[in-house]
Amino acid sequence: MRRALALAVTALGRTSPNPVVGCVLLDPGGATVAEGYHRGAGHMHAEVEALAAAGHRARGATAVVTLEPCAHQGRTGPCADALLAAGVARVVYAVPDPVPGHAGGAERLRAAGVEVVGGVLREEAERANELWLTATRLGRPCVTWKFGGSLDGRSAAPDGTSRWITGHEARADAHTLRATHDAVLVGSGTLRADDPHLGLRHGVEGKPPLRVVLDRTGGIRPDARVLDDAAPTLVVVGESAAPPVLPHGHAVLTLPEPGGRLDLTALVKALYERGLCSVLLEGGARLAAEFAAQGLLDRVVAYVAPVLIGGEGRAVLDGFGAGTLSEALRLRLDEVARLGDDVRMVLRARPLPGGPEPEEVS
Amino acid sequence: MRRALALAVTALGRTSPNPVVGCVLLDPGGATVAEGYHRGAGHMHAEVEALAAAGHRARGATAVVTLEPCAHQGRTGPCADALLAAGVARVVYAVPDPVPGHAGGAERLRAAGVEVVGGVLREEAERANELWLTATRLGRPCVTWKFGGSLDGRSAAPDGTSRWITGHEARADAHTLRATHDAVLVGSGTLRADDPHLGLRHGVEGKPPLRVVLDRTGGIRPDARVLDDAAPTLVVVGESAAPPVLPHGHAVLTLPEPGGRLDLTALVKALYERGLCSVLLEGGARLAAEFAAQGLLDRVVAYVAPVLIGGEGRAVLDGFGAGTLSEALRLRLDEVARLGDDVRMVLRARPLPGGPEPEEVS
Repeated sequence: MRRALALAVTALGRTSPNPVVGCVLLDPGGATVAEGYHRGAGHMHAEVEALAAAGHRARGATAVVTLEPCAHQGRTGPCADALLAAGVARVVYAVPDPVPGHAGGAERLRAAGVEVVGGVLREEAERANELWLTATRLGRPCVTWKFGGSLDGRSAAPDGTSRWITGHEARADAHTLRATHDAVLVGSGTLRADDPHLGLRHGVEGKPPLRVVLDRTGGIRPDARVLDDAAPTLVVVGESAAPPVLPHGHAVLTLPEPGGRLDLTALVKALYERGLCSVLLEGGARLAAEFAAQGLLDRVVAYVAPVLIGGEGRAVLDGFGAGTLSEALRLRLDEVARLGDDVRMVLRARPLPGGPEPEEVS
Repeated sequence: MRRALALAVTALGRTSPNPVVGCVLLDPGGATVAEGYHRGAGHMHAEVEALAAAGHRARGATAVVTLEPCAHQGRTGPCADALLAAGVARVVYAVPDPVPGHAGGAERLRAAGVEVVGGVLREEAERANELWLTATRLGRPCVTWKFGGSLDGRSAAPDGTSRWITGHEARADAHTLRATHDAVLVGSGTLRADDPHLGLRHGVEGKPPLRVVLDRTGGIRPDARVLDDAAPTLVVVGESAAPPVLPHGHAVLTLPEPGGRLDLTALVKALYERGLCSVLLEGGARLAAEFAAQGLLDRVVAYVAPVLIGGEGRAVLDGFGAGTLSEALRLRLDEVARLGDDVRMVLRARPLPGGPEPEEVS
C-alpha cells in the first residue's frame, strides 16, 4: 500500500477534479506484477492502467489500491468490473469511495467471490487525497486560509507596510501552496489595495490556479494585474452590479448578495460545479473572518514571523465576531515547524471527514 | 566541560543573584579527581568546592570550569588564587567573567605560569547562565515576557473570557517558567481585572519568585490575593501616590512617574539593586508594549493556541506603537515546539550578549 500511495501522490495537483489513486498488482508470492496510477481526467484509472500493464498475469493477483475501486460507469467503465474480468483474486484498498453513486465497488467484488480488505493505511491515504475527499464529502471545495503575520497577530503596520513580515522561505512555501490548489481567492479590499497578481512565482511550476476575485460592486479596473494572461480569472460580482467587461480568457460570476454581502455558500457551490475541489484564501482579514463565521473554513496555513508590531497594526483576522471564548473557532493543530526565521503551522477545522476508523475486514 | 556544565545546571534557579558554575578537576591522565558546583549565595564557589574535595590531589591537575575563575575578593577569596595555591597546572573555562572588577582571573593565572584556555563550549555555557549573564552585562534583570494567545493574536474574547485559550500543558509550563525567575511582574490593569495570585501552582516546586505589582496610583486592595503570605510582594507606586499600608512581609517601592507613567528603567534598576537577575512579565498587553517600546524586553515565551477569536478580541500586545514595519521589534526565533495542543516559541531580542566568538586560546 505504501508503494501504491507513493505512485498516487506523484500526480498530486494534476488530477483535479479527480482524486489521486495508485494501484499495485501482486502475484500470490507477493512480487509486483504491474503498477499504475491515475494521471488526471481523461486518463485511465489506476487499476485499469495496472491491469493493462499486467495483461494475463493479473489472473489470481492481489490488487492493492489507494481508493475503493469504482462501480460507476463514467468516461471509463467501472474498475470493479475490470478487476473481475481480469481474474483478480483479492483486492486491498485504503479509503472507501465517497462519491454518491460511485460506492459499491467493494460490494460488487465481494459478491463475485473476490476477497476484499478495506481501510489499510487509511489515514495516510485520506491525507494524500485531502482536498478531493473534503470536496466530495461536503459538496464544495476544500477551503484553506493562508496568512502571514507577526507574533502578535498583525498582517501589516498601521501605515499598511507589510513587506516583508515573513521571510523568503515562508513566501516561497506559500507559492508552492498556490500550485496545489485549483483556485486562489481574494476579497475586494485586497484587490483594490494591493492589485495582486495571484500567479505562480518563486520558480514554482505547475498548472496555475484559477484566480478568483470578489468584486461585489463590479469596479475592477481593466488594467488590474489579475486580468493579465498568466492564468484565467473569475470576477465575482453581486446581482446589483453592472457586469464588468473583461479581457478575453476571463469570466464573470454573478451571485446573490443578501444583506449587501456576496453569498459565500453560493460562491463555493458555484466553484464546485465548475469542477474546483480546492480554494486558497489569500489575504483579506475580513474575507477570512466571513468564511470562518459561516463554517466554510476547512484548513489554515499560518506563517508566523518573530516580529512584534503592536496593537495599532492591522489584524490578521478582522471581524469573525466571537463575542465570548466558547464561540471562538477551535482548530486542530496538525503540523508545526520552523521555516527559515518563521514558524509554519497547519491547522484543520475538523478531522478528515470519514474519520480514521478502518473499514470492517471481510 | 559537559560534565562541569551538567553540575552547574543542577543548581539552576537557586543561585541568584549568583551564576551557576560547575568545576571538574582532572589528573594528567584525564581521570576525574574531584567535582564541585556553586549551590548559591553563601556557599562555596565551584572551584573551591572541587579543590576541597581533591585535597593534595589537585596538584598538577586541570581545572575545567564553566565560568572564568574570579580574581575578586568577595565573601569568599578569589578563586584564581585558590587554584594557584592548590598547584593546579591548567585551567579550561567556558565563559569570561563579565562582572566589572571581577575579570582578570585568567590573566592572573597566566601570569603565574598556569596554562589557560577560554571559550570551550561557550555557547552552551552562556545559555545555562543566560539570566545572570544578561543581568550582569546590562546592569538590570533579564526581562522575559510570557503570553498565551490565539493564533490571531488575542488574549481574550471581547467579553474578557480567556479561560482557557491555551491548554493544560502550556499553563503548567508557564508555571515552571515562574519558578526559574527571581520576580514575576504584572501591571495595574491585570492587578485590578484579574486579582492574580502569582504564586507557584500546578505542583511546581522551588523558591517562589518575588511578586511585583505595578500600582501607580496606590489603589491596591488590602485583600488582594497577591498580598497573601505565599511569597513576598513588592507594590510599586508612583511618587504622587499615598503609599499603601501592606500586610507584614510585603514592601512598597516608590518610583518617579514622568509623563504620568512609572519609570520602567528606574524600576528595573531598583530590582537589580535588590539582587534580582530575572523578571517575568505576565499578562498586561500594555505593560509588555511599554517594556518593548523602551528596549527593555530581552526574551519572549509565547504559547499560541489553535483558536481564532477575531478582530474584536483583546490584543496580546496593546500599544507599542510601531507606525511602520521598519519600527517593529524583530526578534530571533530560538525554539519552537508543540506543547499539548498549543505551540511554544522562545524568542530573544538579541543574541546572548558577549556573542558566540570564542576567546583567544593562550
